[in-house]
Amino acid sequence: MKIMIQQQYSSQLLERAVQEFAKLPGIGRKTALRLVLWMLRQDDADVEQFAEAVRQLKQEVKYCHTCHNISDSDTCPICADQRRDSSLVCVVENIQDVMAIENTQQYHGLYHVLGGIISPMDGIGPSDIEIDSLIQRVAEGGVKEVILALSPTMEGDTTNFYIYRKLAAYNVKVSVIARGVAIGNELEYTDEVTLGQSITNRTIFEGA
Amino acid sequence: MKIMIQQQYSSQLLERAVQEFAKLPGIGRKTALRLVLWMLRQDDADVEQFAEAVRQLKQEVKYCHTCHNISDSDTCPICADQRRDSSLVCVVENIQDVMAIENTQQYHGLYHVLGGIISPMDGIGPSDIEIDSLIQRVAEGGVKEVILALSPTMEGDTTNFYIYRKLAAYNVKVSVIARGVAIGNELEYTDEVTLGQSITNRTIFEGA
Repeated sequence: MKIMIQQQYSSQLLERAVQEFAKLPGIGRKTALRLVLWMLRQDDADVEQFAEAVRQLKQEVKYCHTCHNISDSDTCPICADQRRDSSLVCVVENIQDVMAIENTQQYHGLYHVLGGIISPMDGIGPSDIEIDSLIQRVAEGGVKEVILALSPTMEGDTTNFYIYRKLAAYNVKVSVIARGVAIGNELEYTDEVTLGQSITNRTIFEGA
Repeated sequence: MKIMIQQQYSSQLLERAVQEFAKLPGIGRKTALRLVLWMLRQDDADVEQFAEAVRQLKQEVKYCHTCHNISDSDTCPICADQRRDSSLVCVVENIQDVMAIENTQQYHGLYHVLGGIISPMDGIGPSDIEIDSLIQRVAEGGVKEVILALSPTMEGDTTNFYIYRKLAAYNVKVSVIARGVAIGNELEYTDEVTLGQSITNRTIFEGA
C-alpha cells in the first residue's frame, strides 16, 4: 500500500465538500476538512444561509454600468451619490482597490474599475479591460480630472501611460496618485494613511 | 467620522457573502473578502457546485448507528467491512481522530466515536457523549478489547478512567494507546509515525 490513502473518508458527501473548500485560494485539504467539520456542527439554517449567500452572490450580482464597480443595481451607490464630485474619476484595477480607497475617506469623487491591468505577459491588452469605456466617459464631458490609481508596478505604469496617451486628445487633467506607495507592492495591502496621502498628494502625470 | 466605515461595500450581496465566510473559524473579513471575490471570478456552475456540496453535506450526512462515525448510510464503511477485526474497538473523541488513525494504516479493528470528551469545565458529562452506547456494544458481546485513543490531556485521562470503571464489570481487555504522543498535544495533529507506533505499543490500562 502507498502513502496516498489520506483521502479515504467514510462519507462521499464529506469528501465532496472538502474537495470544494480545498479549491478556494490558500485553503489546503487540512484546513478544508476543518472548515467542513465546523460546518457540520452548525445549525441547518446557518449552513443553508451560507450556501444561499454564495449562490445569490454569483447569480444576482451586477456591475455598475458607469464605473464597473460591483453593485446590486445598474448604477452603484457611489455613482448614484449626488454629494460626490462627478468631475473626478479615479481609475483603479479592481473592486478591492475601490474598497481600499473608500476606507481612507480621503476621496469623494467617482471611480472607474478597469477590471484588470495591461499585461502582455499574461496576454491582457488594452481591449481586454475597461479602457474604451473610460475614454467614452471622458468624451461625454463633465469629467475634469482623471486620477490614475493603479499599483506602482511595471504593468501599472504601462497602463497609466496608455490611458494618458488616449486621454491627450481631451481637455482633461490626468494625475497619478503620489508614489508614497512602495514600488512593487500591491495597492490593496497598503495601509490607509499612506494610501490616503497618496490620493491627497497626487501629481500631474508627465508621460514617460 | 469614525474609522469603522470599513464595511461599506457597494453591494449588499457581497457584504452578506463576506459576512458568511467571515463566520468560518480562522477566517477574518480580509480573507473572507478574498475568498468571495475569488468565487465571483469562477464559473456559475462551479459556484453552484460549491453551494450544493455544502448544502447536501449538511442535509444528507448520516452517522453510523454502531460507531457514530460520519457516513453516507446507517452503517459506515468501516463497520461494514468484513475484513476488519470486529473484536477490537478503538474509542476516539471525534471523526478527525478516526481519519488520523486510518491514515496510519496500523489499525484494522473498528471504532467508537464519543463525539466529545468528559470536560466538567465545559459542562460536558458522561451522558453528553456516546459512552452508554459503547458499554451497550461491549455488553452485547463480541468485543475482546477496547482501545482508548483519546488525547493525552486531563479531559482525556478523565474520560479514559470513567470508561475503564464502566467496563470493569465486563470480560473485556481495556488498553490505552502508548503515550508516545507528547502530553498536551491534540491527537489530530500528531504525525503518522508517532501515532502509528502509539497504536502498536498500546499498554494495558491500570486505572488511576
